[in-house]
Amino acid sequence: MQKLTLVKVGGKVVENQNSLSSLLLHFSNIVGPKVLIHGGGSSATNLAKQMGIETTMVEGRRITDKEMLKIVTMVYGGLVNKNIVAQLQALGIQALGLTGADLNYMEAVKRPVLDIDYGFVGDITKVNIEILCPLIEQNIVPVLAPLSHNGSGQILNTNADTIAAETAIAFSKHFKTELIYCFEMPGVMKDPENMTSIIPDITLREFKKYQNQGIINAGMIPKLDNSFRALNKGVNKIRITNIEGLTSGGTTLKL
Amino acid sequence: MQKLTLVKVGGKVVENQNSLSSLLLHFSNIVGPKVLIHGGGSSATNLAKQMGIETTMVEGRRITDKEMLKIVTMVYGGLVNKNIVAQLQALGIQALGLTGADLNYMEAVKRPVLDIDYGFVGDITKVNIEILCPLIEQNIVPVLAPLSHNGSGQILNTNADTIAAETAIAFSKHFKTELIYCFEMPGVMKDPENMTSIIPDITLREFKKYQNQGIINAGMIPKLDNSFRALNKGVNKIRITNIEGLTSGGTTLKL
Repeated sequence: MQKLTLVKVGGKVVENQNSLSSLLLHFSNIVGPKVLIHGGGSSATNLAKQMGIETTMVEGRRITDKEMLKIVTMVYGGLVNKNIVAQLQALGIQALGLTGADLNYMEAVKRPVLDIDYGFVGDITKVNIEILCPLIEQNIVPVLAPLSHNGSGQILNTNADTIAAETAIAFSKHFKTELIYCFEMPGVMKDPENMTSIIPDITLREFKKYQNQGIINAGMIPKLDNSFRALNKGVNKIRITNIEGLTSGGTTLKL
Repeated sequence: MQKLTLVKVGGKVVENQNSLSSLLLHFSNIVGPKVLIHGGGSSATNLAKQMGIETTMVEGRRITDKEMLKIVTMVYGGLVNKNIVAQLQALGIQALGLTGADLNYMEAVKRPVLDIDYGFVGDITKVNIEILCPLIEQNIVPVLAPLSHNGSGQILNTNADTIAAETAIAFSKHFKTELIYCFEMPGVMKDPENMTSIIPDITLREFKKYQNQGIINAGMIPKLDNSFRALNKGVNKIRITNIEGLTSGGTTLKL
């Protein structure tokens, strides 16, 4: 099987023009078929503020009421996605920006209300990856915004880490997939203050041990949970790293 | 040659949910390959207002400074485009939202500053229609936002009527094209107050005569100029009509 590289790039990297340019240059140099998945949370929060709309987060997840849905549709699907696409085109990459509604590639349901009403947030139900495969064979590079749809006309805000994991799992039937989570740290750190404390590779057992010891916490836990799930479901290789580690390095997950 | 229908839908139709739903339903019933081109100007003006940013128009054209470019990228490329795509998917249409940067299908240059500095406004230089033809053969329906790019990473605000005309011209090499401008009036009217005064068909000579007599004016003139240019450049049929006239009726342009 041919190799496919998926890079998920986090909010802090995409929202600074210098780090975005650097990321896109490194990304464009990856050999072979590739996919970029982006966030955009802090741009959404900034726009909301400018519009006088308050942002509410619960455990790192955005409460997406009707007004906030408009904002994330504009920021993720428009501003962030189209600027990345235009900048990749300038680097000679045949980029195509997509939400889950485009080509119906990602279907979701509005998250059921249990303790918390997240609003217009999507839980992924189906990835129609077959529609993207012929595009990849034509050297087209999908740029995926963190938005899905419910098939009845409703756009839904959807976590970018999860979109990356689910897309990588779906592509694993057709490609040998590597998923790289690119963020501002060089990898999973024993001590975020000490840049030499990177964990070069990590098993699920070690992750759980570090988690119990409080060494790995906060935002890293859902990212690693997502990643181990993807690794178990057929993704060939998963790394967590920064821009400099895009081609090699960072923390590699082991089954 | 196979027939391809292009429908350009104006701001007032897309910005009201009832008229948008009606338009999309009529559009989805068009038999054969089709393309939708949309505006979104008043949504952009409304968002600008909410953000405390003033909108400046010169002869119906938006002055697009850096802040206004962000707004139109968000509104045209994100909010309007993605909601249309999601609603078409709900109608069983395999819609794909595109700006000119996506697949590099439409290249432009920033409009040179003569008397007026329009800012980040694009004058179309090249339509790479060959990239869209295989998509259309796969029953994919492109939904085109009024944004192009300059190939160097810059998104540019671009008039939707012009995008419709240039795309129709480019497709005419591969398809027998019909371009329909859908707006709030039943067609080109002799008297906008009298709904029975529709002109069923119009030649360039008649258009110039009506223009000189002041019967046709304001927003209709660039639309008709664009249309006659497209008719001269190979577009097979051009009509100007409202939602009810989508399949037949309205004003037909004659060479």
